[in-house]
Amino acid sequence: MPDTYASLHRRQLLAGSAGALVAAGLMSRSGVANAQAKALPEYAAWKHGDSLIVHSSTTIEPKRSAFGSSVITPAEQLYIRNNLPTPPATILADRDGWQVSIEGVRKPRTLTVGELKTLGLDSVATVLQCSGNGRGFFPHKPSGTPWTVGAAGCVVWSGVPLRAVVEALGGVADASLVYLTGTGGEKLPEGVDPKSVVVERSLPIKALGDALLAWEMNGAPLTLAHGGPLRLVVPGYQGVNNIKYVKRVAFTAKESDAKIMQHGYRMTPLGGKADPSQDSVLEMNVKSWINAPHPDTGPVKAGLLQVHGVAFSGTSPVTKVEVSVDGGKAWHAAGFVGPDLGRFAWRQFAVQLRIPPGKYTLVSRATDAAGQMQPEQRLENASGYGNNSWADHAVQLTVV
Amino acid sequence: MPDTYASLHRRQLLAGSAGALVAAGLMSRSGVANAQAKALPEYAAWKHGDSLIVHSSTTIEPKRSAFGSSVITPAEQLYIRNNLPTPPATILADRDGWQVSIEGVRKPRTLTVGELKTLGLDSVATVLQCSGNGRGFFPHKPSGTPWTVGAAGCVVWSGVPLRAVVEALGGVADASLVYLTGTGGEKLPEGVDPKSVVVERSLPIKALGDALLAWEMNGAPLTLAHGGPLRLVVPGYQGVNNIKYVKRVAFTAKESDAKIMQHGYRMTPLGGKADPSQDSVLEMNVKSWINAPHPDTGPVKAGLLQVHGVAFSGTSPVTKVEVSVDGGKAWHAAGFVGPDLGRFAWRQFAVQLRIPPGKYTLVSRATDAAGQMQPEQRLENASGYGNNSWADHAVQLTVV
Repeated sequence: MPDTYASLHRRQLLAGSAGALVAAGLMSRSGVANAQAKALPEYAAWKHGDSLIVHSSTTIEPKRSAFGSSVITPAEQLYIRNNLPTPPATILADRDGWQVSIEGVRKPRTLTVGELKTLGLDSVATVLQCSGNGRGFFPHKPSGTPWTVGAAGCVVWSGVPLRAVVEALGGVADASLVYLTGTGGEKLPEGVDPKSVVVERSLPIKALGDALLAWEMNGAPLTLAHGGPLRLVVPGYQGVNNIKYVKRVAFTAKESDAKIMQHGYRMTPLGGKADPSQDSVLEMNVKSWINAPHPDTGPVKAGLLQVHGVAFSGTSPVTKVEVSVDGGKAWHAAGFVGPDLGRFAWRQFAVQLRIPPGKYTLVSRATDAAGQMQPEQRLENASGYGNNSWADHAVQLTVV
Repeated sequence: MPDTYASLHRRQLLAGSAGALVAAGLMSRSGVANAQAKALPEYAAWKHGDSLIVHSSTTIEPKRSAFGSSVITPAEQLYIRNNLPTPPATILADRDGWQVSIEGVRKPRTLTVGELKTLGLDSVATVLQCSGNGRGFFPHKPSGTPWTVGAAGCVVWSGVPLRAVVEALGGVADASLVYLTGTGGEKLPEGVDPKSVVVERSLPIKALGDALLAWEMNGAPLTLAHGGPLRLVVPGYQGVNNIKYVKRVAFTAKESDAKIMQHGYRMTPLGGKADPSQDSVLEMNVKSWINAPHPDTGPVKAGLLQVHGVAFSGTSPVTKVEVSVDGGKAWHAAGFVGPDLGRFAWRQFAVQLRIPPGKYTLVSRATDAAGQMQPEQRLENASGYGNNSWADHAVQLTVV
């Protein structure tokens, strides 16, 4: 709900002691509880601490009740999920000097961000979502962060279209290069096989059509927390494919042989072991959830109720959202609200319902332009990826 | 330029001493100079100090070089211009309890924000611009803040459409009520005539069609700095008409008799005195300016150059932007980049030019769907309102 105190800016709260703020009604009791929870890591200290759940120094998500209804997720509330320790802030010292190697093109070379900026400019709004978002709903408790809905946001990126860079370098070298491979620039720990830790992902080359090398997010230079100075943004694809601190973009004949590609992020059957024959975590699937009303924001009074949430898919726009208050027996058509930021962004949906006192199970179900409908049940898999079950995303509500 | 260090988050900078940060290249010398400039007031301490120029505790604007290219202006960089001292933070203690009186409808009554939230939900992206933006370019040096381009931003508001509220209260009471009047809830200083200080503005009733009572901006609860808990947002109209801390919305037969309406914000001839017969500052006019390249971000190298900026109008979308590098002799068509957030939002424009070493005068000129073209010269007026002169917004550039 937009009116939760939890998302008041942390720095505003820092203007006084927690006790005084509770007295003034500016901090909720849960805010105080939070102050005793895990602190934000230094590289993300500028985030809205009170809107967030800090799982670890590299895994942070906003609370469901802190999602707003304005299409854009503020940087201060966007989730963080880093596979490796965050690089030192010194890599932002000379943003324009950051280098990325472009390989598998006719004229391969290393370009600086400063050079990239002369080659083109575009902005795209995308849903950025960790493929493990919704893992917390899997009953077999997969290892990994138990995200519920927070490991997703909708942000606007600015940078150069990757295809403009490829064109400037003579095009893709030959037709056998059917993968777009991106490599992260994190410093790798010593004494281990680099391939066992490097963040390197390969996508079907069709992803080139929409990919961006981005240096800005939501109107500000890309922060360290989100991959600055340069990130490979692949609209419609699960978060891990959007390579942070990108140092290499290559067109390759084979998928990367890095562990994160070969054995990580695979749709492995329950009880099985990950292997490269299984589907990789690539395009996102159709999904929606309700953000308000939510029990965290206090008792809900009987009468008119605005139910709202977000809906999105992979590379196809969502066209329909339905809402149910009885756990999926009867469905009500919801409307889209606010600006349409394009097929890679999420849409806010809302429906006005008149609800008498009682207990309710609120769920939403999205359909995209390709005809894909959000399913009732999750696709079971060992690591808990791709959960778009509408039943799992239910909100239990007591109306008084 | 997206890569300016100036817009690094202030809080990131606070992680170390200024000296250490300069050494690490994380703070520019101008950043240090800034640290010695006016500090942000407490209610706005969460803003990006290094991106901003603090004129006074109630007038703050981002530097031209800190504007990004992602359509949305982050809250941390949005300008502030308050006519009265900012209310105490305690007015946010119970956001849902904030009251607004709706008058001039068939069933007038006072509604809480909590009640408003049941009546409807919509989001709209608008340019919020102080009517004095560009005042700094007027040669007669009008009194008031000498804004250049910073007193404007593009943000997304969420709230209830005012027309849904009016419908719920039986509609506008009668056809003689042709003004939409909003009143700010700031505490007025004692010992002065309230009408001499209250922020109360009247707009033609057609503004009702798009107006919103907003409780959220850019996905987060509306901050005190920007009018929280509730603001009257009037898309397409100059900033002052978007009433902060709104406590009353009335349909009235006459314009407000408050000084700010009768004598403030009037297009008064040079050397004249403000009076109610002069045009009031209402809808915005067609305007654009270039944000990059900008001399603040260092020397510009000869070769390919991406020139980008923003363009908008009042209630009509912009349809064309042209760019000149010779002060308006020859014009080049620019393209729009990024998502179109609707007719009240600005568009980012960009054009790629190949430029040899030399001295250049970069200007841009926008045209809207109503056929209005941004003029070369400002409309002279005593208080320096509504400056949309393309010549005034030139960027002087040395290319090496």
